[in-house]
Amino acid sequence: MPNPTRYLNYHYPTTPKQKLLALAEWIPEDAEADHYGKGDTIQAFEAEIAALLGKESAVWFPSGTMVQQIALRMWCDRRDSHTVLYHPTSHLAIHEKDAYRVLHHLHAVHLGPKDGLFTLADLQAVLPTLSEPGGGLLIELPQREIGGQLPTWDELVQIVETAHAAGLYCHLDGARLWECGPYFSRPYAEIAALFDSVYVSLYKILNGISGAMLAGPADFIEESRIWQRRHGGNLPGMYPYVLAGKMGLEKHLPRIPEYVGKARGICDGLATIPGIVIVPNPPPTNMAHIHLKGEKEALLEAAKMVGEAMDMRLFGWLRDGIIPGYAAFELTIGEAALDIPTEEIIEAFRRVMAQG
Amino acid sequence: MPNPTRYLNYHYPTTPKQKLLALAEWIPEDAEADHYGKGDTIQAFEAEIAALLGKESAVWFPSGTMVQQIALRMWCDRRDSHTVLYHPTSHLAIHEKDAYRVLHHLHAVHLGPKDGLFTLADLQAVLPTLSEPGGGLLIELPQREIGGQLPTWDELVQIVETAHAAGLYCHLDGARLWECGPYFSRPYAEIAALFDSVYVSLYKILNGISGAMLAGPADFIEESRIWQRRHGGNLPGMYPYVLAGKMGLEKHLPRIPEYVGKARGICDGLATIPGIVIVPNPPPTNMAHIHLKGEKEALLEAAKMVGEAMDMRLFGWLRDGIIPGYAAFELTIGEAALDIPTEEIIEAFRRVMAQG
Repeated sequence: MPNPTRYLNYHYPTTPKQKLLALAEWIPEDAEADHYGKGDTIQAFEAEIAALLGKESAVWFPSGTMVQQIALRMWCDRRDSHTVLYHPTSHLAIHEKDAYRVLHHLHAVHLGPKDGLFTLADLQAVLPTLSEPGGGLLIELPQREIGGQLPTWDELVQIVETAHAAGLYCHLDGARLWECGPYFSRPYAEIAALFDSVYVSLYKILNGISGAMLAGPADFIEESRIWQRRHGGNLPGMYPYVLAGKMGLEKHLPRIPEYVGKARGICDGLATIPGIVIVPNPPPTNMAHIHLKGEKEALLEAAKMVGEAMDMRLFGWLRDGIIPGYAAFELTIGEAALDIPTEEIIEAFRRVMAQG
Repeated sequence: MPNPTRYLNYHYPTTPKQKLLALAEWIPEDAEADHYGKGDTIQAFEAEIAALLGKESAVWFPSGTMVQQIALRMWCDRRDSHTVLYHPTSHLAIHEKDAYRVLHHLHAVHLGPKDGLFTLADLQAVLPTLSEPGGGLLIELPQREIGGQLPTWDELVQIVETAHAAGLYCHLDGARLWECGPYFSRPYAEIAALFDSVYVSLYKILNGISGAMLAGPADFIEESRIWQRRHGGNLPGMYPYVLAGKMGLEKHLPRIPEYVGKARGICDGLATIPGIVIVPNPPPTNMAHIHLKGEKEALLEAAKMVGEAMDMRLFGWLRDGIIPGYAAFELTIGEAALDIPTEEIIEAFRRVMAQG
């Protein structure tokens, strides 16, 4: 059997040669190389992101890992604090080898349960227990590790107002902010306006290569450049990532509503299949965790066989789900799934569950 | 007058479009994208650099700034020390916003004068004065900010032996190590063998875009990956820099002797012109600081006029030299100067000095 040519998740895979060729062809002749962050191309893109997010200024960073610990460190410094608050599944909590603590001597207070959003009540309960005034509250929209859940707009506003009233700066982990547009049904600048600083990603759904932006007040962004240099992130040439991010923004940002709509349609259908549980259902963005009843190995084997028969790559890995007896994968809809009729996807999963 | 098409310094300038097009065309069809540092392409290149430097292992990093503070931090941790030693013009001392101190709580002891190499005697004088056992000694070969000076092989060996005997780890700042091959007239692995860890750059003379490698013992390199993650340097896709570095190594490493030879020829000629002082003379690598007697503005204007008349970009900036009444620029010879007869370069500077 040949490898599938249709993909459920994300965008079509590309090799480095294909990706850089497409990028090179797209790049305008007059685009200038940046030099340690200076140059028309990078600065114009930073200004574009700042405008899109309604902030005074923005700066490109190589990674979200670099940008978020720096943002929280700077907000803490302004409060002479070391305390930051975030969800226990935050990227800082589980993917960064405790950098916030080891490099920046911050102390983290976790808000809410591992398998659900933190609420206004969670924040209100924690605030009186802080041993020093807190510096920064990080809110991730959507909360990726729990399937991309989102609070209601009203709850979000109340959380931010409560945090601000308690003297906390609010930082938005917008790794998947682009994907939240349809749910909140507001311009990105209106969502970002709640926050003192905003991180957005330039790959993931934008299909860039790597890279991030930090947006916020001009003096804050200027100071972050010093920390970027300290972290070793102020590179002599960032244009491959900058331009790939810009190309991705042009191509994919207008299509986010399609991706979200497709994800909802798929999840509606999958939810009717016995043995499938979707978290969250309905998905507010283009992602969800799909929990499948059965053994990992059998499910993976079934997905492979069905995928080959129906020319469809479904999922290539599974992790223990939060439901006993289930395994789960992360569904993220990009342009690839748009080329597969939703009924065919549902039928594929029906067969997987019959075999797996 | 049209802009010059011939360049004294480095390689021919390219736009992002030209650079990425050339890179994409060079990339083999089967080159795989890396994913957070994993993947055949990046790992094979890391192994190639490790072998070239005679070390067990190597790891790609986005920047030398990131890699060197991490290397020194790790060596210090192994000695339960915070003390590092380096030249006062080290990159860590002047270009990194005190990251070694702010992020890693290291304490720096400077060795030698600002305008010359540190010597074995400087090291011997400092060792008894350390308030705690030192962790790491950083040696930059060549010492860039003083024109690319190099110690003799024998002095270098004695310095490293003395440091090791005192319990210091020795780290090589090899930002321009590739350029040292002809001077030491030894394989890179033999130079690197003196050191416990080695940083090399993948852009500069290699004409990559950004990026570096750290080479050393396998356990040390493995641990550095944790710090890379903490710094935000473990990117989801590093292949543009990795492949540009690999392409540059193939193209430029064999040509280093030509670049060094050309630099020596040019400096021999320039040294005969009244009002020009070369540091160091003769240059041991492909670089030197060229000090020109006169006023900055007049010299820049003369360089522009002569450059236009002779179709040659000579220098576009000058800084105050270490000699009163002189201004200086950094000469670095790459492939571009090979296309200009040395006599024409000398003649151009003769005219500049007559006008400037």
